[in-house]
Amino acid sequence: MRKPLILVSNDDGITSRGIRTLVDIMKELGDVLVVAPDGPQSGMGHAITVGDTLRLEQSRIFEGVEAYECSGTPADCVKMARHFVLKDQRQPDIVVSGINHGSNTSISVLYSGTMSAAIEGAIEGTPAIGFSLCDYSHGADFSHTGPYVKKIAEQVLRKGLPKGVALNVNIPPKRNEPIKGIRVCRQANAKWVEEFVKRYDPNGRQYFWMTGNFVNFDKGEDNDEWAIANNFVSVVPCQFDLTAHMAIPVLNEDWEILG
Amino acid sequence: MRKPLILVSNDDGITSRGIRTLVDIMKELGDVLVVAPDGPQSGMGHAITVGDTLRLEQSRIFEGVEAYECSGTPADCVKMARHFVLKDQRQPDIVVSGINHGSNTSISVLYSGTMSAAIEGAIEGTPAIGFSLCDYSHGADFSHTGPYVKKIAEQVLRKGLPKGVALNVNIPPKRNEPIKGIRVCRQANAKWVEEFVKRYDPNGRQYFWMTGNFVNFDKGEDNDEWAIANNFVSVVPCQFDLTAHMAIPVLNEDWEILG
Repeated sequence: MRKPLILVSNDDGITSRGIRTLVDIMKELGDVLVVAPDGPQSGMGHAITVGDTLRLEQSRIFEGVEAYECSGTPADCVKMARHFVLKDQRQPDIVVSGINHGSNTSISVLYSGTMSAAIEGAIEGTPAIGFSLCDYSHGADFSHTGPYVKKIAEQVLRKGLPKGVALNVNIPPKRNEPIKGIRVCRQANAKWVEEFVKRYDPNGRQYFWMTGNFVNFDKGEDNDEWAIANNFVSVVPCQFDLTAHMAIPVLNEDWEILG
Repeated sequence: MRKPLILVSNDDGITSRGIRTLVDIMKELGDVLVVAPDGPQSGMGHAITVGDTLRLEQSRIFEGVEAYECSGTPADCVKMARHFVLKDQRQPDIVVSGINHGSNTSISVLYSGTMSAAIEGAIEGTPAIGFSLCDYSHGADFSHTGPYVKKIAEQVLRKGLPKGVALNVNIPPKRNEPIKGIRVCRQANAKWVEEFVKRYDPNGRQYFWMTGNFVNFDKGEDNDEWAIANNFVSVVPCQFDLTAHMAIPVLNEDWEILG
């Protein structure tokens, strides 16, 4: 049987520890191709590079793995992998992105470069998964993530995913107690409340740092925030059809300006 | 009766003709506050500025309107408007973004900075609308957009929007025949197929331009692509809950690794 072709990307950049962990796991499951940003692209959401040039250079950073570093966003990387690096060749059987240094639960999925690479895969009809470790610390321990990342990727390779769906997988930080299992969840209802810290540069001009507090409004036990807090790996199936279908009949009934 | 407070942003930058058109229309409906990028931010998706500084400076570009230009993304602009410019003051009654120079129908909503400003409004619980003119040309004619932008904003000010919903409004380019009306739609099933044009810089290093062809798979008459092609203004209610709720029972039934 032919080994699956696995496209790996991320948003922390090709030199990050998270993508190294992911590449090592994926090498056990198939042939790996890496196209990843040449530097950090956190918070890039589903950005693409419009009206500017892109660089793409081969990289020897991963022993025995074909890899490229790209000056663009995570979504650019997946587009370049498909339409330039692979072009008329065999296309990937799965797209995996991460492992992100930090949580992408709840509303963070919107701002997540990690998930934008996965969603770009799903748009192309390829099963896709974004992996994130809910630990922002520089020395974050990835050692417990391997078995879960592997199990989930294997499951997706074997069973596929519903059309138009990419998985947002978050893994709890390493704690004293072991992870309890894997839960399929919905995106929690939560948001960030930003604060802006004002500073002055050496020329006396003001600038700002954005900081924020995460506020969780969700009391349910079927969402990703609950899962992580309770030491489960969360799996949220995500879609790129943003239509609020339930709102269509509401507007059709309510509005006087249609026709 | 107190006039509504209208927050205006965009992704083409504060000097673009589209935002000027939008500000002029909104001045007829309420008190206007502008916080918009200091340069073009097209294709930025729902990017935010993480790990870098932000600038915010007052601008006198709009006669009699309080306005600020921000070095960040459209989502940053809405966050700064709310949590820094307004902070403890009265918050906006509506967020409007645009008018974008170019279409944001179907899958383009994901890459759209215009819509990210609107969705950021919806996350905060404020009714929000992104407006786009389906004309990419430099000299695009905005003269026919006014009555539709005004009608839709008035309707939303009067009736609100379902919770968690922002509207993605696209307006056909100026054609010989008049616009037929306003239609509530779903996001069309379509995508971009990219091509990468390779060039060499003066030092002989390769670089790329991303170009693409839009491919519409959707045969329906209830989607935004159909509406624009048939000279209707399209209104797609969009949500920021990306959960593919229908996929949850599928995975729960299908997967052997849960628990």
